[in-house]
Amino acid sequence: MTVAKLRTAVLGATGYAGFELTRILLRHPRLHKPLLLRRDEGGQSQDLAETFPALSGNGGYALEPFSIQRLKKSGVDLLFLATPHELSRSLVPHIVPEGIRVIDLSAAWRLREDGHRAVYGFEDRDLEAASAVMKLAVYGLPELHPGKIATAAVVANPGCYATSVILGLAPLVRAGLVDRGRGIVSDSKSGVSGAGKEATARTHFVSVADNLSAYGVFRHRHLGEMLEQLGLASEELIFTPHLLPIPRGILSTIYVRLSRTMTAPEVEVCYQNFYAGRRWVRVFSPPRLPEIQYSLHSNYCDVGFCLADDGRRLVIVSCVDNLLKGAAGQAVQNMNVMNGWNEAEGLN
Amino acid sequence: MTVAKLRTAVLGATGYAGFELTRILLRHPRLHKPLLLRRDEGGQSQDLAETFPALSGNGGYALEPFSIQRLKKSGVDLLFLATPHELSRSLVPHIVPEGIRVIDLSAAWRLREDGHRAVYGFEDRDLEAASAVMKLAVYGLPELHPGKIATAAVVANPGCYATSVILGLAPLVRAGLVDRGRGIVSDSKSGVSGAGKEATARTHFVSVADNLSAYGVFRHRHLGEMLEQLGLASEELIFTPHLLPIPRGILSTIYVRLSRTMTAPEVEVCYQNFYAGRRWVRVFSPPRLPEIQYSLHSNYCDVGFCLADDGRRLVIVSCVDNLLKGAAGQAVQNMNVMNGWNEAEGLN
Amino acid sequence: MTVAKLRTAVLGATGYAGFELTRILLRHPRLHKPLLLRRDEGGQSQDLAETFPALSGNGGYALEPFSIQRLKKSGVDLLFLATPHELSRSLVPHIVPEGIRVIDLSAAWRLREDGHRAVYGFEDRDLEAASAVMKLAVYGLPELHPGKIATAAVVANPGCYATSVILGLAPLVRAGLVDRGRGIVSDSKSGVSGAGKEATARTHFVSVADNLSAYGVFRHRHLGEMLEQLGLASEELIFTPHLLPIPRGILSTIYVRLSRTMTAPEVEVCYQNFYAGRRWVRVFSPPRLPEIQYSLHSNYCDVGFCLADDGRRLVIVSCVDNLLKGAAGQAVQNMNVMNGWNEAEGLN
Amino acid sequence: MTVAKLRTAVLGATGYAGFELTRILLRHPRLHKPLLLRRDEGGQSQDLAETFPALSGNGGYALEPFSIQRLKKSGVDLLFLATPHELSRSLVPHIVPEGIRVIDLSAAWRLREDGHRAVYGFEDRDLEAASAVMKLAVYGLPELHPGKIATAAVVANPGCYATSVILGLAPLVRAGLVDRGRGIVSDSKSGVSGAGKEATARTHFVSVADNLSAYGVFRHRHLGEMLEQLGLASEELIFTPHLLPIPRGILSTIYVRLSRTMTAPEVEVCYQNFYAGRRWVRVFSPPRLPEIQYSLHSNYCDVGFCLADDGRRLVIVSCVDNLLKGAAGQAVQNMNVMNGWNEAEGLN
Repeated sequence: MTVAKLRTAVLGATGYAGFELTRILLRHPRLHKPLLLRRDEGGQSQDLAETFPALSGNGGYALEPFSIQRLKKSGVDLLFLATPHELSRSLVPHIVPEGIRVIDLSAAWRLREDGHRAVYGFEDRDLEAASAVMKLAVYGLPELHPGKIATAAVVANPGCYATSVILGLAPLVRAGLVDRGRGIVSDSKSGVSGAGKEATARTHFVSVADNLSAYGVFRHRHLGEMLEQLGLASEELIFTPHLLPIPRGILSTIYVRLSRTMTAPEVEVCYQNFYAGRRWVRVFSPPRLPEIQYSLHSNYCDVGFCLADDGRRLVIVSCVDNLLKGAAGQAVQNMNVMNGWNEAEGLN
Repeated sequence: MTVAKLRTAVLGATGYAGFELTRILLRHPRLHKPLLLRRDEGGQSQDLAETFPALSGNGGYALEPFSIQRLKKSGVDLLFLATPHELSRSLVPHIVPEGIRVIDLSAAWRLREDGHRAVYGFEDRDLEAASAVMKLAVYGLPELHPGKIATAAVVANPGCYATSVILGLAPLVRAGLVDRGRGIVSDSKSGVSGAGKEATARTHFVSVADNLSAYGVFRHRHLGEMLEQLGLASEELIFTPHLLPIPRGILSTIYVRLSRTMTAPEVEVCYQNFYAGRRWVRVFSPPRLPEIQYSLHSNYCDVGFCLADDGRRLVIVSCVDNLLKGAAGQAVQNMNVMNGWNEAEGLN
Repeated sequence: MTVAKLRTAVLGATGYAGFELTRILLRHPRLHKPLLLRRDEGGQSQDLAETFPALSGNGGYALEPFSIQRLKKSGVDLLFLATPHELSRSLVPHIVPEGIRVIDLSAAWRLREDGHRAVYGFEDRDLEAASAVMKLAVYGLPELHPGKIATAAVVANPGCYATSVILGLAPLVRAGLVDRGRGIVSDSKSGVSGAGKEATARTHFVSVADNLSAYGVFRHRHLGEMLEQLGLASEELIFTPHLLPIPRGILSTIYVRLSRTMTAPEVEVCYQNFYAGRRWVRVFSPPRLPEIQYSLHSNYCDVGFCLADDGRRLVIVSCVDNLLKGAAGQAVQNMNVMNGWNEAEGLN
Repeated sequence: MTVAKLRTAVLGATGYAGFELTRILLRHPRLHKPLLLRRDEGGQSQDLAETFPALSGNGGYALEPFSIQRLKKSGVDLLFLATPHELSRSLVPHIVPEGIRVIDLSAAWRLREDGHRAVYGFEDRDLEAASAVMKLAVYGLPELHPGKIATAAVVANPGCYATSVILGLAPLVRAGLVDRGRGIVSDSKSGVSGAGKEATARTHFVSVADNLSAYGVFRHRHLGEMLEQLGLASEELIFTPHLLPIPRGILSTIYVRLSRTMTAPEVEVCYQNFYAGRRWVRVFSPPRLPEIQYSLHSNYCDVGFCLADDGRRLVIVSCVDNLLKGAAGQAVQNMNVMNGWNEAEGLN
């Protein structure tokens, strides 16, 4: 039986997440070779292997100028956007009417509430069109919204920090097992690729190596996603990101007080049940805790925990590779769900 | 005017902290060249420069076999112990009666309460002697106990994590400004030298590089020091250490709820007042936060903070170089206090 | 058409190379799930996921005790040895008579000349049997010996440094284009996994980080392989390995004087022709030079060069991932060649 | 006896080398607090502690606008330039006539030969003035030119790579012990601070970490210094720099063929004699070789070697901290020599 293959396109393959995404799509068994698109800006390379020589030696990876015309001419079924959120915000309203599904790795369509969206300062030229896309967009965390993603026209791929924090907390919060009034803390640490490819004083090797720094305390942009997806009030969650001297990987150490006394096996069962059948979350049994290395270069989110003797104070550790489960891998997982394929297709 | 110089000795100069200590003592203007001592164990080098070639080229640094006889013969006034705590525990009762003051970098004499001390499993052969030393020993955090340290016979140099957490919290906790019932969290991260020089699977380069891991959750041995020095109950503080892929430096991110609404300037004044006149704590003004690099290779403890808009939720960041303010530098600072010298002597 | 799958076994999956190998074999389309074997020694884990939690969550990876009986009972066609060379040396003479092919990642069977072999100090209990294996063994560099490997009973998988140096030099040396009398220099740098998993003072994070060191000058054990494979006399090649503060990857900077004046395109053609049709060597066109990152996590050996204006002095840069093209990936490539499969099977 | 203190100024303290320099000058016992100067360009911080928070907490380090008027008004005796070479080239002709001595950390005045200088493309507005400075300028390697430096009006502080290579080779080359016709190779590796503070794609953490790359083969700008100082012809030395994933430190592995057969002790004596009485070069006895860590954060150049059994092929290893002996430390050493002070003053 011949299976019809999907036609995909990527805009933004020269960024870290876009490149990881492209590598996965190139060997995904259900796809034609993806169309690689670039914005028509000066100085861009014309072949992806120029930017990422790791791609050398397998023929070319031509980057063609982006246009909706080209998408249509190439019969693209699904467009991945690995672009700044402003660009996604202006493009998607023009893509959707063409019947092309979109997975957007930017933050453009992740947030429901105006207050949370405000931190991005979107300036929509066509408010109505933007509002129409907002109504279609589904938050692309397959462990939480598999049904909606399956039929979505636009999937808003989650932020990397948000993925690690939401997956670490969702089972307990949704079961009402967290004493939210006592406050939840997520102390999160990320490798530098999470800060993007732009060369700045902050991403200079000498600034990062042999260092650790906290930043964006109380005001990181991923906080809104966490609150919306977990149904928390703003004052119920403190999120502190830190910049780690490693290229990739996120570890979130999350502190909650349980609303009732529990045993470690009860906590573990809560997680196991919540993620039963979900291929890309691994629940670790105590005393083993996730480490960044374990999920690196994989699409796994690893979750483990340590419960205090009082049965109330709980420390949760959640790890993802920020470029995979935190970005490109999750985008592919979403594509798999959108097409009714096995969630693991192309991701092993 | 000629100033009489002090005679010091170091036991344990071949470890990381002992080596840093020795380097400082070698150029301290108030000291004779320190006597370097080794335990008589097989395979030990006879000259410190063999273990640390960074010392090459300035003549020798002979390591002489340790004995109390030798201390006395050399007229040692002050002995630094950079030894395993079991060894300190058995040695110090024999040193004190000789009238030699001791600064012990191990955990042997830091803890008052039996419960906290239990984690170390000390097996004192002479309970009475150990108990006598316990009565003499002063916890060597000069910012908290300068008076007692000045006259102490035995100074128990604090743990590296404990230094960063206690100095980050003391001003607020002592002023009763922390809502202790809501729980305090210290999420701390340390470079690998904090784990000591022993080669283990955990300290192997490949295990640490490109990684981050939490360990010892709810049960790290430094927890007792923090509780005792801050006057907290066990359930009031969660301390989670992490192993960073850097050689040295500690950053603690500390989460507290204030017991009353405050402004950022009020918080800053609280810290500034508490540390007024203390040479080795730097209080950062918001929005600047300490980073590990800033205090690296110095004896500073840097403290900064970020207060939420609600005036209640506070994130404190505290950094030390674990080998200096967290160990050897603090030991020298203690020596300075014990002798009535400027706290900064030899540490610039 | 159903393709019969091969049955493989791995002894030594708990080491770095053995683990990489196992991960590749587990998803190789031509293989049954490999049999994972352990030597019956105390303290070994019984499941590979205990040693490498990155494997968690996909069922178990039981490590069964090694015995020839078990190999036979399981119908193993091909045994991979990722074991110390002494063990390989004693085991292989007992495996070959069973008709089981062997790919040995150790140095046990790589060297023809007694002088080169001497550095390993093999103590063969049965000299005749060892000698018989030596006659069968083929040096497993598929770019040099594809025909012999195809039919070999025993393949001696090359050393990681040797792979990078030999592939960087072979095209020119074999074409007689190198002025050997002037001496060849290979200044090579390797990540720490090349030093193995044993925790030693040298592999301690603090010894490696922020450091670089040369070692084994004039006497590294891989030198013999390079000389034999390139047909060089001992005094014609200087090889200096260095320990890099990275987990994996090798870069060799190789200096030769050409025996005649050449142009850069001529040099490139020489390399391109030599490696024509070889899937796993990429020849870079000047001025682009390979970097460790480009071949990391791939089976590629990347080769590039820079020719001086005089057309005589040539600097060659050759990179491999020491655990893949330098070990496990090359072993799989050898398996592919031994079975007439595409060289890239299972390695993309 | 009161010693008159020198008045110094630094232009360029916000760069890596300028900052290290400033830290040393601030605690140098022979100096008044140095005058810190900035070029009047937009966006520059007004206090050095803003750029380098490691300086916090000791009062201010005001950066005042640079002018010759200000130098004179402040009675500056000695000006350090840690500026781009173009700026040094245009400034120094105006400083010298004021009777202010200059130590220039840039490459502006290091080179005698037009051919070598050409790589910098200097565009002197006043050729005569530039030529006059060229005649005054002394190459500031105190181990080679102590006498000239002592009386120099302008000292051209050497490049970091050049320091490590020249000091590694000078004893043998000057004694005629190197077979120059056979070619010398220096394979050098540097930490990232050597590439300066500018944020570029090349200095981005993700580009450098887990990587190693060669660059500038046959055409690095420091090559000219090496040739001039060692008296070598261009074709006699190949110099290949590499970018190491560490913040600081240089290791050069240097390959020479001796012009006559020697023993290791003879080689060592040659080095020991050449550097006798020179405080800042350490000659290591075989088999110990220098490593980057040993000289890090010190002003030492460490030199060691390994001689082949044939007594002809020699591998030399030379290490410096690129910001100290390779830049700021050497500048201070030069200042000491220029003023007849002990070479080690302020550098311990």
